[in-house]
Amino acid sequence: MQPTSDTVPGSMSENGHRERTFTWQDPMGVATLGRERSGMEVLQAMIDGEVGAPPIADLLGMTLVEIGEGRAVFAVEPAEWMYNPIGSVHGGIAATLLDSCMGCAIHTTLPAGVGYATSDLQIRYARGMTVDTGRVVAEGNVVHAGRRLATAEGRLTVQATGKLIAHATTACLLIS
Amino acid sequence: MQPTSDTVPGSMSENGHRERTFTWQDPMGVATLGRERSGMEVLQAMIDGEVGAPPIADLLGMTLVEIGEGRAVFAVEPAEWMYNPIGSVHGGIAATLLDSCMGCAIHTTLPAGVGYATSDLQIRYARGMTVDTGRVVAEGNVVHAGRRLATAEGRLTVQATGKLIAHATTACLLIS
Amino acid sequence: MQPTSDTVPGSMSENGHRERTFTWQDPMGVATLGRERSGMEVLQAMIDGEVGAPPIADLLGMTLVEIGEGRAVFAVEPAEWMYNPIGSVHGGIAATLLDSCMGCAIHTTLPAGVGYATSDLQIRYARGMTVDTGRVVAEGNVVHAGRRLATAEGRLTVQATGKLIAHATTACLLIS
Amino acid sequence: MQPTSDTVPGSMSENGHRERTFTWQDPMGVATLGRERSGMEVLQAMIDGEVGAPPIADLLGMTLVEIGEGRAVFAVEPAEWMYNPIGSVHGGIAATLLDSCMGCAIHTTLPAGVGYATSDLQIRYARGMTVDTGRVVAEGNVVHAGRRLATAEGRLTVQATGKLIAHATTACLLIS
Repeated sequence: MQPTSDTVPGSMSENGHRERTFTWQDPMGVATLGRERSGMEVLQAMIDGEVGAPPIADLLGMTLVEIGEGRAVFAVEPAEWMYNPIGSVHGGIAATLLDSCMGCAIHTTLPAGVGYATSDLQIRYARGMTVDTGRVVAEGNVVHAGRRLATAEGRLTVQATGKLIAHATTACLLIS
Repeated sequence: MQPTSDTVPGSMSENGHRERTFTWQDPMGVATLGRERSGMEVLQAMIDGEVGAPPIADLLGMTLVEIGEGRAVFAVEPAEWMYNPIGSVHGGIAATLLDSCMGCAIHTTLPAGVGYATSDLQIRYARGMTVDTGRVVAEGNVVHAGRRLATAEGRLTVQATGKLIAHATTACLLIS
Repeated sequence: MQPTSDTVPGSMSENGHRERTFTWQDPMGVATLGRERSGMEVLQAMIDGEVGAPPIADLLGMTLVEIGEGRAVFAVEPAEWMYNPIGSVHGGIAATLLDSCMGCAIHTTLPAGVGYATSDLQIRYARGMTVDTGRVVAEGNVVHAGRRLATAEGRLTVQATGKLIAHATTACLLIS
Repeated sequence: MQPTSDTVPGSMSENGHRERTFTWQDPMGVATLGRERSGMEVLQAMIDGEVGAPPIADLLGMTLVEIGEGRAVFAVEPAEWMYNPIGSVHGGIAATLLDSCMGCAIHTTLPAGVGYATSDLQIRYARGMTVDTGRVVAEGNVVHAGRRLATAEGRLTVQATGKLIAHATTACLLIS
């Protein structure tokens, strides 16, 4: 999945503020693809760049880097423009990464025509992320594939060291 | 809290892609303020525009609109650049809003010099958000203010209709 | 709901151990009732003693004391035979009470022939229970009544003082 | 850990009700042991029968069967007296087993004099338990061992088949 946005780290603007510009595509193209192809096929098409990344990937500069049966991995580079008011990356960024990798892990198990929607998401934070953390990797794995509901678990770690940043679980409703 | 970023909805760029530019400020200014002022004072200074919003607020165009003792409210306008690959706003946006309003609700109860960090966050999704949803409001309220840990609950609703989008709970570690 | 069990606090047996005897009824009577009557009717029949309490109520000495539309209340007396190895009532007792009151709150909203099953349960503990706590009350309230899934929240408090022991949320799958 | 209670499955009493008697010991003996011994030593003493099981183990007929560094396993036999009003074992029983195995998994990592208390517990249910399920096994493993908070995950499975009944995560506050 090639990020279509220009994710240059913030350059200083004349008034002392940092500035970043990103671009994205009409998100409904990918959404309609799900009716004709299995989850595995849709996600592989994204990794291959055959279909564009969804806007949220451009917004955060995050990339789907790997899929397998019941498994999906996203990566992102923590940046200053993700910061909360208490001096580190906002917890919502980890939540977004973990929701993505766990939802896509579940999606890999679904045939064409079956959709999914996150029912709930729980994140446990082990340590913070800052601009010094370096690239982080979120891996999701399916735990239970039911008929109406599937569950998955996820780990967000520092790529260079494997240190745990957060872990999570989710349940997704399956929609035929 | 005045958003410092230019949150114009995506204008079409020449290659058919949408584009958005946002700006933000050095986030460490707000972070250091927390050592000298109570949570209530820091958050009121943000609402009054005395201190700048954190970068995450500029990234998402979200605004802290109201605080009270044990209570905080954020608002945002759902946009196409928040979309997931399945045709609606990514669940991470609701997670970010709910983490923000619940964390700030807890922050309002803390004296100067006491920090907090989200220990865990759980979000339950009731309905999706799209660009047609209109402005949404996330309200957080403290449930239990312990010595080491505080908990809060949050509701994300459509401003115009009050319809429930998601509800959440969190626990934050208190750090002296 | 009259407890059918003899919930005398443990009397000392000859070898210095405490002993408790409880009785219960065939649980399938209540279970089949749910096919013919609405949730509200089934639960009211339990309160009125028209149908027996489920075995779990006899095991723990807990009682369904009140129901309303989207609301249910259970009460129990903490006892020494509920203790964990660290000197207080085991957290599973609070989990059982909160699962019960939230599940029954959801049940009150269901017509005859629609069943439910807990999909997930999250409990946040504010303070412990001991034999000195006195009677505690668990109240569940529906938050979101969807077509496939319903969510509820619960509070477990000390009856005499209103002090919070634990709070919780749940999601239940609805099964037609 | 030898169950001190007489866990005979309910015998029919004269009025058609089932009846069960269990016994337990003063729980404060085990609780005080935690001040002098490490978590690993306390739990090993329980397995060896050197100290008695806590009352909750007698109430439910559950047994601590195995411990390791950051790991603990409990087992129990589902019984009719654990039933909810909808014809299967109450979800609180799974919650109690999972809270126990995850809490003890964290306890194995703690030195003498450091206590713990469950901060929150989340259970996801995959399938129900009945009297036909047979013996079930709950295994807890530490995920993150922090200074103030530790997290763990748990799996409850059918012993004979390995089928997943429920999975869970928890956070425990560490108390020096």
